[in-house]
Amino acid sequence: MKKIIVTLITVLSVSAVSAQDKRPSGYTYGTKEVAKSPFSLEELKLLQQTLLFTEDDVKYLKMSHDILKDQTNDILDVWYGFVAGTPQLLYFFGNTKTGKPEGEYLAKVRERFKIWILQTAEANYDQNWLNYQYEIGLRHYTTKKNKTDKAKAVPIVNYRYIPALTIPVTTTLKPFLAKKGASEHDVDKMYNAWLKSVLLQSILWGQPYMKQGEF
Amino acid sequence: MKKIIVTLITVLSVSAVSAQDKRPSGYTYGTKEVAKSPFSLEELKLLQQTLLFTEDDVKYLKMSHDILKDQTNDILDVWYGFVAGTPQLLYFFGNTKTGKPEGEYLAKVRERFKIWILQTAEANYDQNWLNYQYEIGLRHYTTKKNKTDKAKAVPIVNYRYIPALTIPVTTTLKPFLAKKGASEHDVDKMYNAWLKSVLLQSILWGQPYMKQGEF
Repeated sequence: MKKIIVTLITVLSVSAVSAQDKRPSGYTYGTKEVAKSPFSLEELKLLQQTLLFTEDDVKYLKMSHDILKDQTNDILDVWYGFVAGTPQLLYFFGNTKTGKPEGEYLAKVRERFKIWILQTAEANYDQNWLNYQYEIGLRHYTTKKNKTDKAKAVPIVNYRYIPALTIPVTTTLKPFLAKKGASEHDVDKMYNAWLKSVLLQSILWGQPYMKQGEF
Repeated sequence: MKKIIVTLITVLSVSAVSAQDKRPSGYTYGTKEVAKSPFSLEELKLLQQTLLFTEDDVKYLKMSHDILKDQTNDILDVWYGFVAGTPQLLYFFGNTKTGKPEGEYLAKVRERFKIWILQTAEANYDQNWLNYQYEIGLRHYTTKKNKTDKAKAVPIVNYRYIPALTIPVTTTLKPFLAKKGASEHDVDKMYNAWLKSVLLQSILWGQPYMKQGEF
């Protein structure tokens, strides 16, 4: 009986990851390994209001899901190409001793990044989502950088680069949004919703970098 | 002779403020009152690269200057209307005792905000510009918040709201960019350059919130 319950919990837990069936290494969304975010859902709503983020954006993010779901590998090719061609970004994957990029670290992050695309498109802003934003922040900060992937890279991603990446991420996404026949109007709406969502997330990832009450 | 030199220095100092002839209260751009930014021009270039900010963006920001120069008051009406209608933002102008917005504080910031529009359009990224970004950051942080205007408002602007404001600022600016007959193509280009510039500046304003080496 106990075994059945454990199996059932496992099944439910996996089905909660609607974005993808297989969990990539280090992907802990919705599990007990993720701590509760110090930021509340109520505070999230106030921040979304400031970003002019509305139900309309949720609608267009959801519309982008099916357009993007078979293109995540191609999108990651473009994003990783950008990182590879931008030494100040590739640096954060660099081994502290040799300075060379850590291939396994890059590969593991890439698998989680694919799910992140689909989860951004799902636009499901519940407590699990909020907790995972904090977890992602910790993984960029000294608290958890490298630990998930047992990497030996530099100990922190300098925060300034995180919101800055909103621009290349959304600019390069736009052609992929347009590849499945959506109207120009809808592509623009999806792009704008993505812009707000990526900026919102990059802001949330900054919380570990700041003192309580200052974030 | 001494008087002539002093007059000359004053004239040179004023002419350096090409954005506007009269300096509003608390506007110290290019003066000795502004400390050197701990962020370097070389680091700024690397950050601009990450934002895909190019000479093309400089061109379109400059194009926006003459379009916006007679509209700053109307733009500020829209932006202040947004702040007034968003309690979580108006809060930062609120008196610590009464909670009511400080009118004089709002009015003084507004005059400097007008010049900020024109200076953003000038896109002149020299050491003075960089130093003033740090000064603006300090004025949002506990270091200098309220001091410039002798305000008695809350002691800090929570950082999360600063990059978030990139969206309402640029979204509401777009109709003003379109008001003087520029083509749709040029309006889009100007809007995109503004998006990058405002995001860049909001990132720079975050430096005082973070420890050295983490920003």
